[in-house]
Amino acid sequence: MPWPHIQLSLPDWVDVYIAAHPSTFKKVEDRMALVVELARQNVIRGTGGPFAAGVFELETGRLIAPGINMVVSSNCSVAHAEILALAIAQQKLGTFNLRRDDAMEFELVTSAEPCAMCLGAIPWSGVVSLVCGARDEDARNIGFDEGPKVADWVKEMTDRGIRVQRDLCREQAREVLRSYHEQGGPIYNGR
Amino acid sequence: MPWPHIQLSLPDWVDVYIAAHPSTFKKVEDRMALVVELARQNVIRGTGGPFAAGVFELETGRLIAPGINMVVSSNCSVAHAEILALAIAQQKLGTFNLRRDDAMEFELVTSAEPCAMCLGAIPWSGVVSLVCGARDEDARNIGFDEGPKVADWVKEMTDRGIRVQRDLCREQAREVLRSYHEQGGPIYNGR
Repeated sequence: MPWPHIQLSLPDWVDVYIAAHPSTFKKVEDRMALVVELARQNVIRGTGGPFAAGVFELETGRLIAPGINMVVSSNCSVAHAEILALAIAQQKLGTFNLRRDDAMEFELVTSAEPCAMCLGAIPWSGVVSLVCGARDEDARNIGFDEGPKVADWVKEMTDRGIRVQRDLCREQAREVLRSYHEQGGPIYNGR
Repeated sequence: MPWPHIQLSLPDWVDVYIAAHPSTFKKVEDRMALVVELARQNVIRGTGGPFAAGVFELETGRLIAPGINMVVSSNCSVAHAEILALAIAQQKLGTFNLRRDDAMEFELVTSAEPCAMCLGAIPWSGVVSLVCGARDEDARNIGFDEGPKVADWVKEMTDRGIRVQRDLCREQAREVLRSYHEQGGPIYNGR
């Protein structure tokens, strides 16, 4: 019996949306603004949960890979925005480790603090910087379980050479969560 | 610019190996024996790290989906055995939540205790049972970082309705880790 492939493809609107905008984001606020807008678009277009992420080249701000939550639309509980952004970036650059021996370093920007799974995925990916919009409790406030995260997760990242910046555009990111909740978007916690 | 798809396909030998063996494993020891053998084969055939997993129908022991570590071979740091088994099972059954409202329940059997990422993925998947072979420290002893895991992860799983069984065939599972290490297999921690 041949086993199904895992295939995750971003919906067409992501291509179209990004092609219509600049592809380099010098300031980290602009990287977050893109990511929060992708989260908002994901809700509006009904292609997933209220979360998005992006991998950027740290110094230049070039977008390497976007990611959006596709859990429901792809029938895959692993398809969180951060996982997609990291895996697509690795696919694009042809490496399982973004911390290769060359000069480039990479940053993961995410519209909400990562859940336990995504937090665990970050050190394996090779990014050196993590930037978060909404807080963990903002996601929990609309009903999402964030999973068993160690209390000092920022220190755990820092100890592994990953810089963490929190609360960037938190209010805008939280607004996307709120509007998803008000529309009655599905909350899926595997229960 | 179109973004690369994430595509993960098990190597052909997995099909061939499983087709040559029974597909139903009434006893949990037999489920683990299959999983440990898949981990061993993955090392021998050079298709990935010394880890494998499987999703089984809890009551009947029918194999729903196998998974093997494919981090290096697929250029994807997310491609741990547990992630593949869970995602392939969901693909096969057409649901992002294996805890659906019908009569079937599912078990994840893994050759080694899950890393922080895979541990975080388990509650989102909908499995109701987790069975582990080697211990977390057995993987760490050969150089793998297991990531930031909460100390009471068994309780965290139990609180979410997931039964945990540890140390099943631990010695056999540890032997696969040891032989991988002795062969100089790559240890990848994203550093």
